[in-house]
Amino acid sequence: MTVYNAPLKDLQFIYKEMGILEQLQGLPGCEEVTADLLDAVLDEASKLATDVIAPTNGPGDRQGAQWDNGVVRVPDGFEEAYKAYVEGGWNSVPFEPDYGGQGLPWALSSSIQEMWQSANLAWALCPLLNQGAVEAITAHASDDLKAQYLEKMISGEWSGTMNLTEPQAGSDLSLVKSRAERDGDHYRIKGQKIFITYGEHEMTGNIIHLVLARLPDAPEGVKGISLFLVPKFLLNNDGTPGERNDLRCVSIEHKLGIHGSPTCVMSYGDNEGAIGYLVGEENKGLACMFTMMNNARLAVGQQGLSVAERAYQQAADFARERRQGRGHDPKAGAAPIIEHADVRRMLMTMRAYTEAMRAVITDTMCLMDISKRHGEESWYAWATRRVGLMTPVIKGWFTDLAVELTSMGVQVHGGMGFIEETGAAQHFRDSRILPIYEGTNGIQAMDLVGRKIMFDDGKALDEYLDEAHSFINRLNGLSNDDIAVIRKYLAAGIDTLEQAGDWLLEEGKKDPDAAGGAAAYLLRLFGTVAGGIMLAKAAVVACAKLESGEGDQKFYAAKLATARFYAENVLSQAPALLIPITEGHKTLAAIDEEIL
Amino acid sequence: MTVYNAPLKDLQFIYKEMGILEQLQGLPGCEEVTADLLDAVLDEASKLATDVIAPTNGPGDRQGAQWDNGVVRVPDGFEEAYKAYVEGGWNSVPFEPDYGGQGLPWALSSSIQEMWQSANLAWALCPLLNQGAVEAITAHASDDLKAQYLEKMISGEWSGTMNLTEPQAGSDLSLVKSRAERDGDHYRIKGQKIFITYGEHEMTGNIIHLVLARLPDAPEGVKGISLFLVPKFLLNNDGTPGERNDLRCVSIEHKLGIHGSPTCVMSYGDNEGAIGYLVGEENKGLACMFTMMNNARLAVGQQGLSVAERAYQQAADFARERRQGRGHDPKAGAAPIIEHADVRRMLMTMRAYTEAMRAVITDTMCLMDISKRHGEESWYAWATRRVGLMTPVIKGWFTDLAVELTSMGVQVHGGMGFIEETGAAQHFRDSRILPIYEGTNGIQAMDLVGRKIMFDDGKALDEYLDEAHSFINRLNGLSNDDIAVIRKYLAAGIDTLEQAGDWLLEEGKKDPDAAGGAAAYLLRLFGTVAGGIMLAKAAVVACAKLESGEGDQKFYAAKLATARFYAENVLSQAPALLIPITEGHKTLAAIDEEIL
Repeated sequence: MTVYNAPLKDLQFIYKEMGILEQLQGLPGCEEVTADLLDAVLDEASKLATDVIAPTNGPGDRQGAQWDNGVVRVPDGFEEAYKAYVEGGWNSVPFEPDYGGQGLPWALSSSIQEMWQSANLAWALCPLLNQGAVEAITAHASDDLKAQYLEKMISGEWSGTMNLTEPQAGSDLSLVKSRAERDGDHYRIKGQKIFITYGEHEMTGNIIHLVLARLPDAPEGVKGISLFLVPKFLLNNDGTPGERNDLRCVSIEHKLGIHGSPTCVMSYGDNEGAIGYLVGEENKGLACMFTMMNNARLAVGQQGLSVAERAYQQAADFARERRQGRGHDPKAGAAPIIEHADVRRMLMTMRAYTEAMRAVITDTMCLMDISKRHGEESWYAWATRRVGLMTPVIKGWFTDLAVELTSMGVQVHGGMGFIEETGAAQHFRDSRILPIYEGTNGIQAMDLVGRKIMFDDGKALDEYLDEAHSFINRLNGLSNDDIAVIRKYLAAGIDTLEQAGDWLLEEGKKDPDAAGGAAAYLLRLFGTVAGGIMLAKAAVVACAKLESGEGDQKFYAAKLATARFYAENVLSQAPALLIPITEGHKTLAAIDEEIL
Repeated sequence: MTVYNAPLKDLQFIYKEMGILEQLQGLPGCEEVTADLLDAVLDEASKLATDVIAPTNGPGDRQGAQWDNGVVRVPDGFEEAYKAYVEGGWNSVPFEPDYGGQGLPWALSSSIQEMWQSANLAWALCPLLNQGAVEAITAHASDDLKAQYLEKMISGEWSGTMNLTEPQAGSDLSLVKSRAERDGDHYRIKGQKIFITYGEHEMTGNIIHLVLARLPDAPEGVKGISLFLVPKFLLNNDGTPGERNDLRCVSIEHKLGIHGSPTCVMSYGDNEGAIGYLVGEENKGLACMFTMMNNARLAVGQQGLSVAERAYQQAADFARERRQGRGHDPKAGAAPIIEHADVRRMLMTMRAYTEAMRAVITDTMCLMDISKRHGEESWYAWATRRVGLMTPVIKGWFTDLAVELTSMGVQVHGGMGFIEETGAAQHFRDSRILPIYEGTNGIQAMDLVGRKIMFDDGKALDEYLDEAHSFINRLNGLSNDDIAVIRKYLAAGIDTLEQAGDWLLEEGKKDPDAAGGAAAYLLRLFGTVAGGIMLAKAAVVACAKLESGEGDQKFYAAKLATARFYAENVLSQAPALLIPITEGHKTLAAIDEEIL
């Protein structure tokens, strides 16, 4: 396992040179987010990630979480890392100050989370799930519940979970069977939940489960689901954890990856029924659930970037050391494989995608800050639409890429990549959950084409495309050769996205199966274009710096080259996607189920 | 783990309706390969694969091979399966009758191997490696060595291995350090070899290692490597295994997948030196090695098809059973997910690629039979060139696809796909070695653009393209709508391959790094077009049957739909690959090694 180094230089470039910091500083409550604060926060976080969390990644994978008669133990080092993380105040970064949060921008919080997730995906899932729970409670719970639970969940003293899935109810939550019965001022919950990440562990003094269940008189389907807060330990009058609630972890799963993260089968109400408290209104649990989910979907997208970044660093390090074949100087003996064109191609692909993803998510999280803080209704509504549009793209595209790029990381290692001790295979295994959980990428694709494009008649997409066309027009003014190449492929990609959107609003609306067949391709196209736009923006900045001669010229030259590489190797594939988008569905139903 | 069913119907279609059987029957020594024989062989093989070998796949993965003080034990059931396989005479199918082989066509042998590999990739590696060793001994060893070793290796009583890799010598065999010293009529071998598949085990009475080593006076580099036959047990005068040779298995690797297959670190000559016998001439080991490698590369490509087929069957079975979301009949409650368009897209993608791969490899193996048996020099030379051209395509394209398609298989399963007990994840893990061993896919891509295209000035490619253009012209005569669509995308793909070839011969020859940067994309393009040609040929046959109304109409309709799906969803992407082929290399060297 190689050392993890946080991509501080790239993050600082995005914040300071691509205008994110400036946008944040213009928002109410963000006036104190200075360049110095940014540097300090990123630096400190990177130290914790590199020195404390990252070393637990390989050993945690080999040891795995262990279940023993209802008690779950996380791997050695996880508790110490979590303690250091909580003591450093890292858990409270983005939350509202009312309950002890630091109120820092979501963008910054997300950039720090990139580091936790790169350091150890399995470990960092605990704070990730807690964040979703905090968001849901903040948005929907009563003041009483907030007062009792939020402060300790924000500090990290307690952790939160999301309990949605049941054996028969995965993507389709209308099939949830868990029951909740009214019992005085609370409810009694009974049922089994599966795939509950960090559903049980000993890292925190309490675990606050958010559980979807159905009231006896609830309507069928998703309109009959309610959300309940169900603590592992019921609270004493002084707010401290007291009696154990009627819930337990029955077993944990044996998984392909993220072995350090306990994936629990939870049983609620084996005896008198677990005590739960309603969050939001009865039968309106789905809306509350989506508050958690949207947050978690962006965070899972972030995980995709993170594991790809770690895999890239490891592959590049290996390629600098490993010597095979002749290089540029044939007399020098075996050359580092980084000199070979095909290895370069793989490393550049990994680099270009990770830089594109990082810029896309930082930009989107900045828009989330705008949506949460901007005073003007029109800005608020615009930013909210854009974040909604980008959420399935970030979840779906980033996590599909995570699998592809960690696979490439294995490939760069050759035979050593297949040996578990090397660590490259762990990233590949860990990454494979990302296209599945928090809504499979098929669900993301349907969310994009359905809720985010067709349902608002393409308004959010139109806004996006208008800005994209304006940007292309601005590129016309630049005479740099690299920029000209980038502009050419980016313009073609944007045009393709526009045509795909037009087709969707015309034909997709008439035929749900056509839209469904197009969805995954359209998500891929959107991600490819979105990444291209952000890399092109970076290239414009880099170009100006190269002309002025200011700053780290090698860094800017690399930025420009990376953007051009992406244009020629990745964006160039975008126009061809229009064919499966518009035609691919025609044969989908042609083969009978029994012989498919 | 679901039941494995051999794709008998598709194989019979390829042989009997796509002309393979007819071509084989025209070859000397293949007169007895009748349709009845074909049916009998495929049926019997499928029973062994389904009933005996396939059930060992999941348990073998969980148990894994075990090393105990130099002794290696394969998982439970492997020995029994191997015994049944040898007793059934399956190991001897393709080999020459002089030493007990059955002399059946390589094509047929390859189709049977598809079944073994689908049934259990880890188990079937033992016969796969033995096959390469038999080929090398048959082609290069002395009559004495052949007499002593071949019969038992062909029957399967003994197994063979390939010992190439050393810690410092993977893709680059010029770095091999193992030593061989002359000692009377034999040699003494000393050195360490790694990644030796089935280097040690107890399934066979002897293990015949083919070992690359260097004589004391050998020239440096690949021109100083010799190949030696080094048996685990030296032979008594009566040919039975006697004294143990000076070699041992030091340890086995802890790998991402193929856990049932022992990957051994082998130590030769810890004491007096392992006794070895020269195969071929001194210092000409590389040519012998390539005999093994070419055979093994095609077989590894076959493994890619096999694991994809197994993953496809499992995903389709799951999708027929698993109910989530509303389907075509909203009143019917939750529908099998196979009704959802995006799940269909994934299953159709898996189906189309596996059918394409099966047709490509069967066609190529038939050409191998032509190359080995056809009396006319021009046919022999043409078929040999074509097999050489297709070998890196089959190894590289099939195995890249194996990873992508097994990943899709996991995705179809949703959360269950990430749980090891489901078995979908095993295919994903197992598949990941395929793009690496027997020459990484980077090496395959360089072989394709270098040795197979540029070195013969595009002769083999030109022949391929000429045939492809003729086929397109024949398609013009057909008025079917599906065929028209298929023709359109196939013609564009073929034109793109031609342009890529022209670029390579013009620009790639001038700049090795440009060719190197283009190589992986060109391999992808070639595979995509090759698959498209074979599916289009299948579609033409299916179309005629649909018009005549003869035979299983659903099967033919599915064939036609699958070919059209492939055209619109896969082939449609081919033209865009020309851009990274011709332009992608321009930024490859732009970033300094230390900051890449």
